[in-house]
Amino acid sequence: MTTTRAWKLVARPEGPFKPQDFQWAEDPLPKPGDGQVLVRQIYLSLDPTSRGWANSSATYLPPVALGSVMRGFGLGVVEESRFAGLAAGDYVQGLIGWQTHAVMDGASLSRMERDPGIPLDAYMAVLGHIGATAYFGLLEIGKPNPGETLVVSGAAGAVGSLVGQIGKIVGCRVVGIAGSDEKCRWLTEELGFDAALNYKAGPLRSRLRRECPAGIDVHFENVGGEVLDAALVFINTRARIVLCGMIAQYNEVVPPPGPRFLGNLLIRRARLEGFIVLDYQDRYLEAFGPLTKWMAEGRLKYRTDVVEGLEQAPVAVNRLFSGANIGKLLVKVSDEPGAVR
Amino acid sequence: MTTTRAWKLVARPEGPFKPQDFQWAEDPLPKPGDGQVLVRQIYLSLDPTSRGWANSSATYLPPVALGSVMRGFGLGVVEESRFAGLAAGDYVQGLIGWQTHAVMDGASLSRMERDPGIPLDAYMAVLGHIGATAYFGLLEIGKPNPGETLVVSGAAGAVGSLVGQIGKIVGCRVVGIAGSDEKCRWLTEELGFDAALNYKAGPLRSRLRRECPAGIDVHFENVGGEVLDAALVFINTRARIVLCGMIAQYNEVVPPPGPRFLGNLLIRRARLEGFIVLDYQDRYLEAFGPLTKWMAEGRLKYRTDVVEGLEQAPVAVNRLFSGANIGKLLVKVSDEPGAVR
Repeated sequence: MTTTRAWKLVARPEGPFKPQDFQWAEDPLPKPGDGQVLVRQIYLSLDPTSRGWANSSATYLPPVALGSVMRGFGLGVVEESRFAGLAAGDYVQGLIGWQTHAVMDGASLSRMERDPGIPLDAYMAVLGHIGATAYFGLLEIGKPNPGETLVVSGAAGAVGSLVGQIGKIVGCRVVGIAGSDEKCRWLTEELGFDAALNYKAGPLRSRLRRECPAGIDVHFENVGGEVLDAALVFINTRARIVLCGMIAQYNEVVPPPGPRFLGNLLIRRARLEGFIVLDYQDRYLEAFGPLTKWMAEGRLKYRTDVVEGLEQAPVAVNRLFSGANIGKLLVKVSDEPGAVR
Repeated sequence: MTTTRAWKLVARPEGPFKPQDFQWAEDPLPKPGDGQVLVRQIYLSLDPTSRGWANSSATYLPPVALGSVMRGFGLGVVEESRFAGLAAGDYVQGLIGWQTHAVMDGASLSRMERDPGIPLDAYMAVLGHIGATAYFGLLEIGKPNPGETLVVSGAAGAVGSLVGQIGKIVGCRVVGIAGSDEKCRWLTEELGFDAALNYKAGPLRSRLRRECPAGIDVHFENVGGEVLDAALVFINTRARIVLCGMIAQYNEVVPPPGPRFLGNLLIRRARLEGFIVLDYQDRYLEAFGPLTKWMAEGRLKYRTDVVEGLEQAPVAVNRLFSGANIGKLLVKVSDEPGAVR
């Protein structure tokens, strides 16, 4: 019998996640039934959206029930299968949750082609929900054209860093907004952003004007709050704003007031549109082809911030909100098969 | 030689328009040059958007220059033409301005087919920029489907009252939001709205929830502020919000904070899009066919609030912002040819 070690959500967080909102549990798992598989998790993805899932009200998914394992994307390996589409040894991605093992419906998991030339963490940082978010969010909602100006907030985060690089591949002028000089240097010196602005280093608006002399055609929003408001000031006619995240307010009990310059959407006939990557789940492979090619060509780089051990998850998740992480925040839950420690 | 009597904008208003922001002038007009016409204005349209035009910063049009005639849509009759497309006696619409006569480029005016069975004010209230705003804004940006719920703010205004009726023709459940019980009665008893809510009669949110039991699929926003925020609470997945006006904040020197529930756009993958009718100017005739038919069938009603005499314009324009008018606010500048007083 397999035992899963898990973090269960036992209290609705008020403000940031606190350790006491979670409870550590070690529970025996049933044998997989018909259509089910037993998965061992290797990487758990920590994502800003998880904060919303912990609230009592539904988002685009129902709330995580109190007393149940915290929801989370992850990457794992199938240890036992009674689902025709998966075999033991297959790599999979899906909502495995904050636990070491899970018995899940095989149909709820996506099978991964494991290319041995690609590091396993790339499947969480690029060739998974993060890469699909950047790819579909930017290309299908933002619709950037060569020569246009793209602004990305949360630019040193998992999604933002990919969005900016895809923007460069499309031929945009790309301006990133991030929360430290170190992050900004990474964006311009390693990822090829045209400019990067540290929003903590003083008022943003005048600097954004300077870096966007032709205005903003596409704005990819991961943060919300003041950053969105500054971008609204400079949007061009028919600008597209992709509302992918509002991390600045996920810890607020009452949502703060919105942007003052929303009226510019009217004057500029611009579009602000919400985006949830789960809507594109059946099209992920469309994104993974180009993303893989761009990685191989050295045009798409990623970085991971890996925390060792599932025990760390309740504390580590707040790195997202404090801005401590650069790139994709992952928890290493167990070793890859065949790994030598 | 023709003299035009005109209101010139001589000061940038702070807050609402004040009489001293305008100066009355009587100026001789030149003879029309090649391609030009002399127009006598019959109806001047007073529209909320005029407040933005009076500011020093550009909107979707350049600011009205201080010392020049205030900008405004109007309907008039050609008295003299040196433009091949227009003849004396033709009815036209265009940006004639706050004046009795104008010498204008003929190409900047739209010629009207004057159907003697249709009252002249209907050409300002329905078969002009107002009808085109309601028609294209609702159908092309809002994209309502039969059975969906449409909410309209500023519902007793010129545009809002048409939007709601077109929504009923499409087959929507239509809920209007307006600023008095009298307006609400007009919407439900005469225009066929399913419900109308007086936003001044207490908190809006619980009443909006009651009238939109299946949520909101299309929201047509003319007002902004709290009304928009209340609507955002109840938007459905893939809802469309047409941002057509934000009259609640046009008199503010600094734009007020925006809606708190903007995050629902993300969760619901909804779209908030700005709309300016001038972008559809070459397609107005597409709208006027159905609008004329619906009027003839008694399915599309309108109401005008007519102020007599151009002298009244600087005071009358504030009826828009105080909510005094029901339906289309017009200034009767001169008589229709052949009219008997």
